[in-house]
Amino acid sequence: MFQTFSTNRPTPNQRKTRLQKLRDSLKKQKLHAFLIPRANAFQGEYVPPSDERLAWLTGFTGSAGTAAILPNHAALFTDGRYTLQAQTQLQNTEIKTYPPNLLAPWLAQQLPQKARIGYDPWLHTTASLNALRQALTKKTIALIPQTPNPIDEIWKDQPDPPNTPVEIHPLAFAGKSSSAKRAAIAKELRRQKHDAFILTDPASLCWLLNIRGRDVPHTPFLLCFGILEKTGRAALFLNSSRLSNETRAHLGEDVAICPPESFADRLRALKGRTARLAETQAPDRIRMILEEAGASVVLASDPCLLPKARKNRAERQGAREAHRMDGIALAKFLCWLDREGACGEIDEIRAVRKLEEFRREEPALQEISFDTISGAGANGAIVHYKVDEESNRRLRAGDLYLVDSGGQYRHGTTDITRTVAIGARAARPSGEMRDRFTRVLRGHIALARARFPEGTAGSQLDVLARAPLWEAGLDFDHGTGHGVGSYLSVHEGPQGISSRAGAPLYEGMVLSNEPGYYKAGFYGIRIENLMLVRAAARVRGGGERVMLSFETLTLAPIDRFLIMAEMLSVEERFWLDSYHGEVYRRLSSFLDKDIRAWLEEATAPLS
Amino acid sequence: MFQTFSTNRPTPNQRKTRLQKLRDSLKKQKLHAFLIPRANAFQGEYVPPSDERLAWLTGFTGSAGTAAILPNHAALFTDGRYTLQAQTQLQNTEIKTYPPNLLAPWLAQQLPQKARIGYDPWLHTTASLNALRQALTKKTIALIPQTPNPIDEIWKDQPDPPNTPVEIHPLAFAGKSSSAKRAAIAKELRRQKHDAFILTDPASLCWLLNIRGRDVPHTPFLLCFGILEKTGRAALFLNSSRLSNETRAHLGEDVAICPPESFADRLRALKGRTARLAETQAPDRIRMILEEAGASVVLASDPCLLPKARKNRAERQGAREAHRMDGIALAKFLCWLDREGACGEIDEIRAVRKLEEFRREEPALQEISFDTISGAGANGAIVHYKVDEESNRRLRAGDLYLVDSGGQYRHGTTDITRTVAIGARAARPSGEMRDRFTRVLRGHIALARARFPEGTAGSQLDVLARAPLWEAGLDFDHGTGHGVGSYLSVHEGPQGISSRAGAPLYEGMVLSNEPGYYKAGFYGIRIENLMLVRAAARVRGGGERVMLSFETLTLAPIDRFLIMAEMLSVEERFWLDSYHGEVYRRLSSFLDKDIRAWLEEATAPLS
Repeated sequence: MFQTFSTNRPTPNQRKTRLQKLRDSLKKQKLHAFLIPRANAFQGEYVPPSDERLAWLTGFTGSAGTAAILPNHAALFTDGRYTLQAQTQLQNTEIKTYPPNLLAPWLAQQLPQKARIGYDPWLHTTASLNALRQALTKKTIALIPQTPNPIDEIWKDQPDPPNTPVEIHPLAFAGKSSSAKRAAIAKELRRQKHDAFILTDPASLCWLLNIRGRDVPHTPFLLCFGILEKTGRAALFLNSSRLSNETRAHLGEDVAICPPESFADRLRALKGRTARLAETQAPDRIRMILEEAGASVVLASDPCLLPKARKNRAERQGAREAHRMDGIALAKFLCWLDREGACGEIDEIRAVRKLEEFRREEPALQEISFDTISGAGANGAIVHYKVDEESNRRLRAGDLYLVDSGGQYRHGTTDITRTVAIGARAARPSGEMRDRFTRVLRGHIALARARFPEGTAGSQLDVLARAPLWEAGLDFDHGTGHGVGSYLSVHEGPQGISSRAGAPLYEGMVLSNEPGYYKAGFYGIRIENLMLVRAAARVRGGGERVMLSFETLTLAPIDRFLIMAEMLSVEERFWLDSYHGEVYRRLSSFLDKDIRAWLEEATAPLS
Repeated sequence: MFQTFSTNRPTPNQRKTRLQKLRDSLKKQKLHAFLIPRANAFQGEYVPPSDERLAWLTGFTGSAGTAAILPNHAALFTDGRYTLQAQTQLQNTEIKTYPPNLLAPWLAQQLPQKARIGYDPWLHTTASLNALRQALTKKTIALIPQTPNPIDEIWKDQPDPPNTPVEIHPLAFAGKSSSAKRAAIAKELRRQKHDAFILTDPASLCWLLNIRGRDVPHTPFLLCFGILEKTGRAALFLNSSRLSNETRAHLGEDVAICPPESFADRLRALKGRTARLAETQAPDRIRMILEEAGASVVLASDPCLLPKARKNRAERQGAREAHRMDGIALAKFLCWLDREGACGEIDEIRAVRKLEEFRREEPALQEISFDTISGAGANGAIVHYKVDEESNRRLRAGDLYLVDSGGQYRHGTTDITRTVAIGARAARPSGEMRDRFTRVLRGHIALARARFPEGTAGSQLDVLARAPLWEAGLDFDHGTGHGVGSYLSVHEGPQGISSRAGAPLYEGMVLSNEPGYYKAGFYGIRIENLMLVRAAARVRGGGERVMLSFETLTLAPIDRFLIMAEMLSVEERFWLDSYHGEVYRRLSSFLDKDIRAWLEEATAPLS
């Protein structure tokens, strides 16, 4: 199984001992506080076990948060997604939970004038440290870098860092050779008079070199640093044992393989030259090394970001193929759920296992793209719910069941959410549920049908998905869409659809379209498809401007039992019926007869 | 007449002489260039004749632009609204026209290393100079402040600066006393540890002191500076001859009246204290004086901006009243246009005069709120068209006629655009015109009907007004809405509706809703109403969140001959019929019988 349901958290006694040891070490260093972010040097969503310092120390396992440990106080700062989870996991401990924006004010309040706060400079970006420093100037509190990390000194059985083999991402899927990609980015560096770009984002590094790995769950990353010179040559810092003859040949002569220990020296060798760093992503330690060595540091955007986001023809074709394969798994799963869901024997974990089982029937599947969110009834209302043995809940007739999942195929990455009325054939879902579901669907359709000029930002389109909820005094508290990588991270920038997503949309970008509605304590609704940005078809009468539109990639039926057809406009019905027609047309020939019959019914036009 | 149609521009010989004199003066000062922005020290849209330096020198009369005069070259940098006008007005001169973003690159290209560019520091903001300085660092070009302005030295018959009497804006319209406003802003200054705020925006100053004036056309501004201390006391810099006993008493003891010449000394008296300046509005000269004197300058937002934009109960009631009065004038005008428009005797100027005549029938009218845009046929496609004797065009049956105008009433400021099919009773407008008009109307209605959570920015709502055009591959190249003052400027921030309008919307703000469509060389369409942001009515079933919505303030029929009823949804028709019903209900009793009969027909439900 790619997904696990148990958590390895410290016992209360372990937690006490670990905190005490850390405090002893802080005392020795004359520090008044130490910061532990849920981050590693690569600032990604997933961190390997060797970097789970926050969970090891505090027992909090959320994917975002920072603990501040003081001699007599401790606090965890995490966002709304994890407030409840943090309160549960830190129950009966001294660690209080606060929202992330209170980190600086809390430190300023708790600490004396001229206090010294320790932090590991590999785990914080320059941008985040600058903001923190700024907020603490009034009390002249200093931030003191600590290397090695004091936690690593007291963590006796800390796992080794990941060391998985380098895998080739073949040209058939990548669509462009690494040397061509490197030449294009190097040209951009020369244009901006940068001598080298320090590759600190594993997504950029894997994309640039057409390689993948298995260093973290669910995302085919290699966790390693690289340097791209303005000549197009690159250095990759990893153990050569991770390379076979084949992968070594794939990388070619222009990519030097260097031991990870030599990274700092190679940075120092940039003395007198201009090194570009990804401002919001690179660990501050790299800036320190470069500046101490006399290199000139430019904090700017990651030049791989935009070319990676704009999928080429092979990647677009791959995305369609990945979604066909994923659609087959979803059809099997939704059919099974329709037949077995209301029997009283299915729980959230069993559903996750079953869905993974169906996905694994496709040999091209490499991984799931994130831990499946499988929430029945009230659990569906927890936006970032992750089922475990304790929270696991049985599916019952009358429940809404929300399932958000995805697959990693060599061809591309998928991400889909469906909400299903359990046992709807016998017990029709309530009018309120159907009203809310239909509003979410109308928002989803408005976004899917949108036509817009090139350069439009996701923040401009966000309202389309919300207006039908706003009309009824309702809303949802997450973004409407995120970018998605190509057999890479399921969350990729710069594109997005939310009030804060200012990046312009371009042809070739892949985005999710996932409006929702959540009634805390009762049920959750979300409808998510992935969409590809593409040139809009010409309209009747021509039109005067070049427009973009979305091609929906995801192929799976939307639960007809939850739709109030009379709330839909003619155009909305037309979209839904066409979409369902396409789902059936693309998937039916790959399904057994009985599932095909089920799909035919599930995708029939609304009557 | 408030509006004039002739322009007082230099003859070719005058222009030559003036340019030569300026160049002689630059030579004496060892300057390689001089900048002349179309601005005065108050950075407003309208400048008094004494500040029309750009028009006096070059003959360009647009409301935005900067000229750069070099010993052998000259160029004008102005935006797309004025490109055509500039090319016409500068025909057969040495002055070339470029877009505004080329100012810095053009200077860098034309000027030698270490060149000296002169500028008048009263006419540029700190923010704009910093941006320019940054762009010229590579060639180490210096910006050299010039006071007095060299143009003033050679402009022999330069008019005197305006000196109109101070008028009281009574509490009944202002809704809040000046002392209460000053106390609130002073509290904010103390909270942020600022000792004083320098009032440089006439709109803020007039709002804060509940006074008005007639220093510029169309906007009831007094052009003068002020200083608000953190105690709530203020100093106002103007000739005491502008005050009557009554206005002096209205200002009260806590507002000191100081001669304009003493302003610099009062700034210098802030030595050792913290002075706040409006970053994007204050002239750089003020910063220079303060810093030279040893005051600490904080560049921040104008603290009057948000309270001024959030109209209080009296201002909201005043806005409704102003729109009722304006609606009466519009009804008379549109009825007259329906009856006379196709006779072949009406031209754009006559229409402007007639509209102003109808507005003047209401004694509360003080001014028009801007020069009326009166564009028939192809002239309607010029977004910021201002008719003059040369461009004046006759209205003909079959034409679309676009009229964008507004009034300044003591109660409030109005701004309305209507597009009318001339002679539509005899000759139905083309299918294309009606299709475009109906799309613009659908966008207008979508915005007018919007419900949204507090804190939503105008940039999020903008798409609602564009989506029906985008669907057909069409768009318009201006913002959808701007903020409007309360018997103040017809353009007021921070609120707005456009892709760049990031300010959150709050209850009490007034905004325009003015989508359009322009077919260059043929016709222009725009439908504009003003709207007030207010708490949304509760929906059936309650709703969970506090929502805002818009109350449409403008009262005037929308031309039914241009609507394709079959393109409207049930909800859109319902909005239009309700709106028209409201227009009739609010206006009919104030109209003569025959105009009332016309209005009844013009506002009847769509059949």
